[in-house]
Amino acid sequence: MTDLAPILSAAEQDFDQSLERLFALCRIPSISTDPAHAADCDRAAAAIVADLSSMGFDAKARPTPGRPMVVAHYTPKDANAKTPHVLFYGHYDVQPADPLELWKTPPFAPQRRKDADGVERLYGRGTADDKGQFMTFVEAARAWITATGSLPIKATFLIEGEEESGSPSLVPFLKANRKELSCAVAFVCDTNMWDAKTPAITTRLRGLVHEEVTITGPRIDLHSGMYGGPAMNPIRVLSKVIAALHDKTGKITIPGFYEGVAPLPAATKKQWKALKFSDAKFLKEVGLSVPAGEKGKSVLEQIWARPTAEVNGVWGGYTGAGTKTVLPSQAHAKFTFRLVGKQDPEKVLKAFQAFVKARIPKDCKVTFSGRGGGSPATEIPENNPWISKSAAALKAEFKRDAVLMGSGGSIPICRSFKDILGMDSVLVGFGLNDDAIHSPNEKYNLASFQRGIRSWIRIIGGLAS
Amino acid sequence: MTDLAPILSAAEQDFDQSLERLFALCRIPSISTDPAHAADCDRAAAAIVADLSSMGFDAKARPTPGRPMVVAHYTPKDANAKTPHVLFYGHYDVQPADPLELWKTPPFAPQRRKDADGVERLYGRGTADDKGQFMTFVEAARAWITATGSLPIKATFLIEGEEESGSPSLVPFLKANRKELSCAVAFVCDTNMWDAKTPAITTRLRGLVHEEVTITGPRIDLHSGMYGGPAMNPIRVLSKVIAALHDKTGKITIPGFYEGVAPLPAATKKQWKALKFSDAKFLKEVGLSVPAGEKGKSVLEQIWARPTAEVNGVWGGYTGAGTKTVLPSQAHAKFTFRLVGKQDPEKVLKAFQAFVKARIPKDCKVTFSGRGGGSPATEIPENNPWISKSAAALKAEFKRDAVLMGSGGSIPICRSFKDILGMDSVLVGFGLNDDAIHSPNEKYNLASFQRGIRSWIRIIGGLAS
Repeated sequence: MTDLAPILSAAEQDFDQSLERLFALCRIPSISTDPAHAADCDRAAAAIVADLSSMGFDAKARPTPGRPMVVAHYTPKDANAKTPHVLFYGHYDVQPADPLELWKTPPFAPQRRKDADGVERLYGRGTADDKGQFMTFVEAARAWITATGSLPIKATFLIEGEEESGSPSLVPFLKANRKELSCAVAFVCDTNMWDAKTPAITTRLRGLVHEEVTITGPRIDLHSGMYGGPAMNPIRVLSKVIAALHDKTGKITIPGFYEGVAPLPAATKKQWKALKFSDAKFLKEVGLSVPAGEKGKSVLEQIWARPTAEVNGVWGGYTGAGTKTVLPSQAHAKFTFRLVGKQDPEKVLKAFQAFVKARIPKDCKVTFSGRGGGSPATEIPENNPWISKSAAALKAEFKRDAVLMGSGGSIPICRSFKDILGMDSVLVGFGLNDDAIHSPNEKYNLASFQRGIRSWIRIIGGLAS
Repeated sequence: MTDLAPILSAAEQDFDQSLERLFALCRIPSISTDPAHAADCDRAAAAIVADLSSMGFDAKARPTPGRPMVVAHYTPKDANAKTPHVLFYGHYDVQPADPLELWKTPPFAPQRRKDADGVERLYGRGTADDKGQFMTFVEAARAWITATGSLPIKATFLIEGEEESGSPSLVPFLKANRKELSCAVAFVCDTNMWDAKTPAITTRLRGLVHEEVTITGPRIDLHSGMYGGPAMNPIRVLSKVIAALHDKTGKITIPGFYEGVAPLPAATKKQWKALKFSDAKFLKEVGLSVPAGEKGKSVLEQIWARPTAEVNGVWGGYTGAGTKTVLPSQAHAKFTFRLVGKQDPEKVLKAFQAFVKARIPKDCKVTFSGRGGGSPATEIPENNPWISKSAAALKAEFKRDAVLMGSGGSIPICRSFKDILGMDSVLVGFGLNDDAIHSPNEKYNLASFQRGIRSWIRIIGGLAS
């Protein structure tokens, strides 16, 4: 294996320039959701293309119906059939910065600041999400090329510009460029560490399926004096549906719902227990104290390894000020189901619809939004060699085992990589829970940036060996 | 007893003028809820004052913080301590007329029209609610005075101008003029007949109490991926509350709720059964088929003699288009309870609050709007002599027994008459269910107006004898 010391040293010597390159990128307000910033997104893409080209990448900003997609390829001169080819994914677009008045320093004037706690942080929109994160592997690649003249692997960088606005162009782009973008594995740098001292690899992402339900009772809104009693109120019907979704132990009661949900392996359970995660502290931060999920399961297991049935919104009847004695015609609710293991989104949706239908009185009606879709959970086998290599590299850098963690959310890009390009994703990121991404005063710890670069130098070395 | 024939004949001879007086009143857009029509309300009040004054009443439009209150007194020259003194209540204000485009003829250009079914009807805003109704007793009084030179009773007319906007000035006005307005009984002409051939006296009105509930789970809206599972969703809590309100038989489960609710007397049950009311037809009109109230009780009993627990509105979380994976901090619902018999609004409210509190997890919170208030049910004993006299008069006119019916709604004026002035109300009206009050193309059947006048002539005669 290549001696990494000169590469790490090259990164260290170049660090001030690395920071300046990141800041230059952060000064561009590449807000993808706002059409007024389309030109800024173009500028950001062009800057990345110029930078990667200067490093020897074959880089282009590729047009899409929305913001451009940066695609860059690097093939070492001595590459052969055994040289691994991996994809690195990140995004150059950022969230809007408002409310502006809550920022202590301007969102697009990034700066390095030592805070009262003695920690140095980089403040500005995009410092963490995701410019700071993806620049860690750009800078790691640069250090490799500076120190050794080349990357030791074939690399494809895919830096999109629409992640913060739902990635509408991504799936068509992957489909249209399937061959070009299919690699052995995708590295995604958009997640967090376990804590400031402990690296992490996210190996579980919950799937998601959503449904909107409308229940109709009387054909028109009625006067609750004239009809209250004999006329069924659809809010009552809807409430019975929602109330029936969970039993007293927090278990979801939809028949067949848990099909494909495996119990947590004892080893994983043990690992998670060793994290000494405080359920009480986690809940207290949001004003709660009683875990609402399935009894007997820890909070981490509830979020990372168990499915949910959630009501995201409910409405019906009169919701304005004061009182109105209406007996409404309709009641509505939006539901999402977080999925784990091998739960099939379509089956879950059908089972839920049947569950609802079984609770509709014969003179009421139910309609479903029928939007369909949804995505299953992603679970990357922990014995996957890309995981082991990354974990070893992270341990070498942090002198601690990387936590193999889950995420309660869904990162649709990983599903697309799997379904369209046939490759697993390895999620390694250096963000922290207090980075305030999507909020005012977004920051990235200086150490996250520095050790992120060092970590990728080691991971790239590990992949090549 | 006075021979009524000449009085009925006087009314008949004067009928065209009666109609023209009603139409003149209906041409004034006295919409109380719209400040732009305040002057129209003043005009309507002044017109009634002028008319009653011309008949020998001591009539005035009395100022209130809102629209004026018409109060008019009549004392026969030969009145003595035994001469009954009764109050007649109506209202000169009307509902707004929009949507205007749905009117076949302009709302404030009243007209008499023979429809395709051969029935003559009076079309226009206020023809039924309540100008046409209260003018029946004004015209009856006029006929008495024309034919006999006097009314045979002491009469006080109270015609308010804010009924369609919640009667905000009424209670203070009654309190301020308690002595002047206290009579033996109040006749209210603002209700319906049983059907076009069958007169009715409304003797039961349900009471009403309302409450708004807010349940708070997490202190802020959460991401359903990050917190879904361990964090309690307040919509789930609220739904359990609503779902628990009724058992499988439609009975309300709040402990103590039915305190003061007496079973329906067998005689009343028999009377109502004899009405051959079609539960199926009633429900079918609004698109339903299964009575949702307590099992084993007819629709009429459910509306007229049983209490309800109704949700008038519910909201929480994301209710816009599309999907948002939010786990909301709060969920809200508006409730009303219709009361019967001797149910105490305050007790019902407290029992409901306790019922809700018992269903709130210990880390969630509940708040109540605390608006309080509410009014108990009104039930006028059917052996009340005013009822018997009115029923006899109606039978003489229609050759059919008057139906002693209930109303599922609440008419707060009756509670105020009882509580402030100590008098019962007798509700006799000549409206029909298809009068489209509050809707476009409001109408009053010509026969309702004609026989309404004749009925009041007879009732006044009955009161005097």
